[in-house]
Amino acid sequence: MQKKIVIVGCGAAGWSAAVAARKIDKKAQIIVVEQGRYPVYERGGIPYVIQGDIPTFEALVNFPPEYYDFMKIDMHTETKAANIDSSSKEVMVIDKKRGEHRINYDSLILATGAEPFLIPIRGHTLPEVHGVRTLDDGREILKDCKKARSAVVVGARLVGLETSVALRQQGLTVTVIELNPQILDGILDPELADEVQRKLGSEGIHFVLGTGISEILGENHVEAARAGSLKVKADMVVMATGVRGRTQLAQQIGVELGETKLIKVDERMETSIEGVFAAGDCIECVNAVTGKPTVSQLGTNAIRQGKVAGTNAAGGSATYSKILGACVTKLLDMEIASTGLTEIYAKKFGIECVSASAEAPARPVCYPERLPVRVKLVANKINGKLIGAQIISRREAGPRIDTISVAIMKGATADDLILFDHAYTPPVTDSTDPLSVVAEILSRKLI
Amino acid sequence: MQKKIVIVGCGAAGWSAAVAARKIDKKAQIIVVEQGRYPVYERGGIPYVIQGDIPTFEALVNFPPEYYDFMKIDMHTETKAANIDSSSKEVMVIDKKRGEHRINYDSLILATGAEPFLIPIRGHTLPEVHGVRTLDDGREILKDCKKARSAVVVGARLVGLETSVALRQQGLTVTVIELNPQILDGILDPELADEVQRKLGSEGIHFVLGTGISEILGENHVEAARAGSLKVKADMVVMATGVRGRTQLAQQIGVELGETKLIKVDERMETSIEGVFAAGDCIECVNAVTGKPTVSQLGTNAIRQGKVAGTNAAGGSATYSKILGACVTKLLDMEIASTGLTEIYAKKFGIECVSASAEAPARPVCYPERLPVRVKLVANKINGKLIGAQIISRREAGPRIDTISVAIMKGATADDLILFDHAYTPPVTDSTDPLSVVAEILSRKLI
Repeated sequence: MQKKIVIVGCGAAGWSAAVAARKIDKKAQIIVVEQGRYPVYERGGIPYVIQGDIPTFEALVNFPPEYYDFMKIDMHTETKAANIDSSSKEVMVIDKKRGEHRINYDSLILATGAEPFLIPIRGHTLPEVHGVRTLDDGREILKDCKKARSAVVVGARLVGLETSVALRQQGLTVTVIELNPQILDGILDPELADEVQRKLGSEGIHFVLGTGISEILGENHVEAARAGSLKVKADMVVMATGVRGRTQLAQQIGVELGETKLIKVDERMETSIEGVFAAGDCIECVNAVTGKPTVSQLGTNAIRQGKVAGTNAAGGSATYSKILGACVTKLLDMEIASTGLTEIYAKKFGIECVSASAEAPARPVCYPERLPVRVKLVANKINGKLIGAQIISRREAGPRIDTISVAIMKGATADDLILFDHAYTPPVTDSTDPLSVVAEILSRKLI
Repeated sequence: MQKKIVIVGCGAAGWSAAVAARKIDKKAQIIVVEQGRYPVYERGGIPYVIQGDIPTFEALVNFPPEYYDFMKIDMHTETKAANIDSSSKEVMVIDKKRGEHRINYDSLILATGAEPFLIPIRGHTLPEVHGVRTLDDGREILKDCKKARSAVVVGARLVGLETSVALRQQGLTVTVIELNPQILDGILDPELADEVQRKLGSEGIHFVLGTGISEILGENHVEAARAGSLKVKADMVVMATGVRGRTQLAQQIGVELGETKLIKVDERMETSIEGVFAAGDCIECVNAVTGKPTVSQLGTNAIRQGKVAGTNAAGGSATYSKILGACVTKLLDMEIASTGLTEIYAKKFGIECVSASAEAPARPVCYPERLPVRVKLVANKINGKLIGAQIISRREAGPRIDTISVAIMKGATADDLILFDHAYTPPVTDSTDPLSVVAEILSRKLI
């Protein structure tokens, strides 16, 4: 009997689930409904299109329609899942082309994603106020910024800073407003965040930290933004203030939410209702270090969760381990990467920890470009195990943070990183890697 | 009482031991005797000086003399340890400047290194025949290659190929002669080795594989080399045919050698004689995958072993885990990295294994340069644990192989690498890393 798998949403999680399901069951009918115009695209690339590194927004769309045909994935874009009847196992959809109809399922995967959260302050509906979530958001930002001379970006985490740099590269005066007293909260500890902020500041990006935006001024068009007692002139406002997981459909059928108000799933990505799986920005994650529920809405999580959900929905067997929230960004010529807990967050979670930080070159002294790599490592004071890391360098921050993510996941200690079997040759690496240099400093503090 | 630590040899191991000893004991007298003209230098950089990437051979010397003064390390270059009396704990040295004298010690570290092995065939003493071990070797090769039009390089492992590329970049016709039927034996499996060979071949480097060099022809100068029935015209010959650990001093005082005929040490890097430690190219390693004694004469091993030997010799406590032999090289625009066992070597050691290999991009499709990364992973068929990996890519092969080295050291399986917490952003990495792509293929073969 042909199994019928319905996937609601085709972002990273939905796409990944569909492909994983297909790998397990060559014959299953796999139907994906996506309310947007496009199936999965590289959301993370939007600021880099604005910046001009990637030629068009269309270039971010991962696969042409033929790909889905080839994978025998029945893809319905511009189709909204309006209702689910979990007793009759039916999804009621509204298809822009074909109207309202019902699709029955054997397994259901909720990959409903998240929507940008625009702070509902006065002026937030003015035409030059945008989120940074969809290709259309990107297009509007790019269009507006061609006419604008100044912009306010609200939010100083990854997307906020990436967009700030992009707008600055487009020649705008950019002011970042962030409620937190530091940029990249939860990603970098303050001393590293300050380093990044100084660099961005030297390129002409202004920061208003520790103060939220309270109002957007202007009659028919954005003219300025207010934060505390400050008034910042701006022709446009970008709100990079996070996203909210879409859980309405899940709630409607009685799927249990976790303490973060996102969908609760088990290791198999199954919800509290049998046969209903969930993945991506709409689900609650479990942090690998704290063991506690957490919100970690990253595309990489979504892909991994989707893979596990799709595999199990199709009758295979897979489990997903807890998350570290590893991430990386590129701002100007800096790559900034982070995994696990920052020192500040570790302490917030009551973990007694020790940290060490240093800048060490990735290449030996005989090479003209030594590629300094700033590394901070955080370890649990009780057992010496690594629990977090932060890296800033011109290049290779991504692969280096991956090394530490694997180390943390496998329970490595600071000592394990001192003498690990690092590969060396002068044009590529130094004989002792920056990771080992910092691990050694950390190890001495752990004694 | 001031402790007196004598270190014989100041290559990577001796230097590292001296520094580690100083960190443990601020007051100890640390004496290093080195028979060469220079203390530690970046041996691995020699081919890259010949190639012109590094300006001078002097640039490879890691530290100026002041460094050793600052570290209070009593450094004697051009001083040969001729004899050791382990009962009276004295080293008899011949110092170029001060003549013969005795140095007594409390702890002794043998970091005597290795010397290049020039195959003693007819013609091997001709003036244009060189090893690639010392700065003077490098200088002579560079001098000769300015006059030469063609060269034969004997040996197709790391140093042989690096030197071949360097000589080719200098405009010479280069022929590599290698007894093994493949290049990079033990580092790459044949299919990846072939890929590298084709690339080098397309740049005009010729290969004679599966045949040893039998004779160097020429009266007073090198004119040609013979390998099997072939005669290869050459104005110079470089022998990159490996090194032999120097164990004479160790043997003289009765230090036990292992089955590889190198110095046997325990995890503390102590030899069979109490208070006598050893590190670097003169010692026998233990392979982390096979658990068996092995020869792995890499600078990185030497540094790690030296650190452990120096720490223990100074009264501290450190142990060194088994080695994977991780290495990386840069040939033209290829970075080639390897760790653990190749599939062929795993089978030689009787390990039932499964492998997977693919080329996957490190950057998403929207980026102009996708940076293809060729990865081969090898896992133990019985328990699914990773035992080796090989990578070829334009960049980042070093940090990526490090990730796998940590994974192997911590007992990770192929499955662990599929869903590991990889960090992603379009300008830096793709959402699924090449390591995960190949791990997934491997995992399916392991079921």
